Amino acid sequence: MGKINKREIIIEEAAKIFKAKGFAASSMRELAEQVGVEAASLYNHIRSKDEILEEICFKVAHIYMSSILAVDDLEISSTEKIKRIISAHIQLVTTHSNDVAVANVDWKNLSETKKNLYKEIRKGYEQRIAAIIKKGIETGEFKDVNVSVALFTLLSAIRWVEQWFKPNRSISAEELEKDMITLLINGLKK
Amino acid sequence: MGKINKREIIIEEAAKIFKAKGFAASSMRELAEQVGVEAASLYNHIRSKDEILEEICFKVAHIYMSSILAVDDLEISSTEKIKRIISAHIQLVTTHSNDVAVANVDWKNLSETKKNLYKEIRKGYEQRIAAIIKKGIETGEFKDVNVSVALFTLLSAIRWVEQWFKPNRSISAEELEKDMITLLINGLKK
Repeated sequence: MGKINKREIIIEEAAKIFKAKGFAASSMRELAEQVGVEAASLYNHIRSKDEILEEICFKVAHIYMSSILAVDDLEISSTEKIKRIISAHIQLVTTHSNDVAVANVDWKNLSETKKNLYKEIRKGYEQRIAAIIKKGIETGEFKDVNVSVALFTLLSAIRWVEQWFKPNRSISAEELEKDMITLLINGLKK
Repeated sequence: MGKINKREIIIEEAAKIFKAKGFAASSMRELAEQVGVEAASLYNHIRSKDEILEEICFKVAHIYMSSILAVDDLEISSTEKIKRIISAHIQLVTTHSNDVAVANVDWKNLSETKKNLYKEIRKGYEQRIAAIIKKGIETGEFKDVNVSVALFTLLSAIRWVEQWFKPNRSISAEELEKDMITLLINGLKK
């Protein structure tokens, strides 16, 4: 198995363990066991537990950010933009559920510098969605609600899908996406 | 200061620390410093860090449960029931923000027995709300969406208010409550 693949496998397994036990309570020894290698040999592929956390958090942050950059400048309605953002979120959450779970909770455990960077990316991301909502209110597409309330209602609803959605539930990712768009867009729409 | 008060203060300060750093990364030494006593004297009031976590999680679980029991048997519409549940949630989140933050994330760190009990209470709670949503769909008050999607969209949106709502933001708890009800109820309503 190549070095890059091994690294990816380590990070994938780490995300599972961090999700189950939290970052602080997870050990490199446990991770090594899970991957099926000696603890010492993990360090041929990654430098530290902190590095794994960074990789997971920034992977998620960058996917979120790309999904909004992809719609931000399009000449479509605010409603359509929010729909696409919801879809992208749900796809991320359903395909990278462990990564999203870890980023949602354990970004607090990033080093000070990385934590500030993470918060900055997240803030930029939230501001872009807030701007779309604000525009939708101004054009009369959306109800005249507080922009922060609308923003965080939307973000919370989609960000925490990873906590309860399981592919073996009696609902598909497609149905989930369709119904969440129905609920969230109708909530916003005037 | 009486023993009961001191205990309450310890638990309050613990919730702040657990929220900021996570349960696993928080120490009794740090808690003692925060409370302004010797670490050893904490144990006159509480048995362990685990006991504090239990107290916080079950306090939150019981408030949630009472809020739903208070509306469950009333002869009011499903819409009105959901409105009242949202209000109760938002009041809890805005008045006990640290407790809710800890319960939301660190219930995973409860001992096996307590964790199972916690999950059972939460499940009962979710089932009662699901039943209200189901009834609302049957009576034609709500849209015909998947009940789990509606349930968790609602719960996520209100459960995570503690992560972003700060009383010093330019929005009051009342405005928050009004706008969240608008967004969530209109999302559901047929």
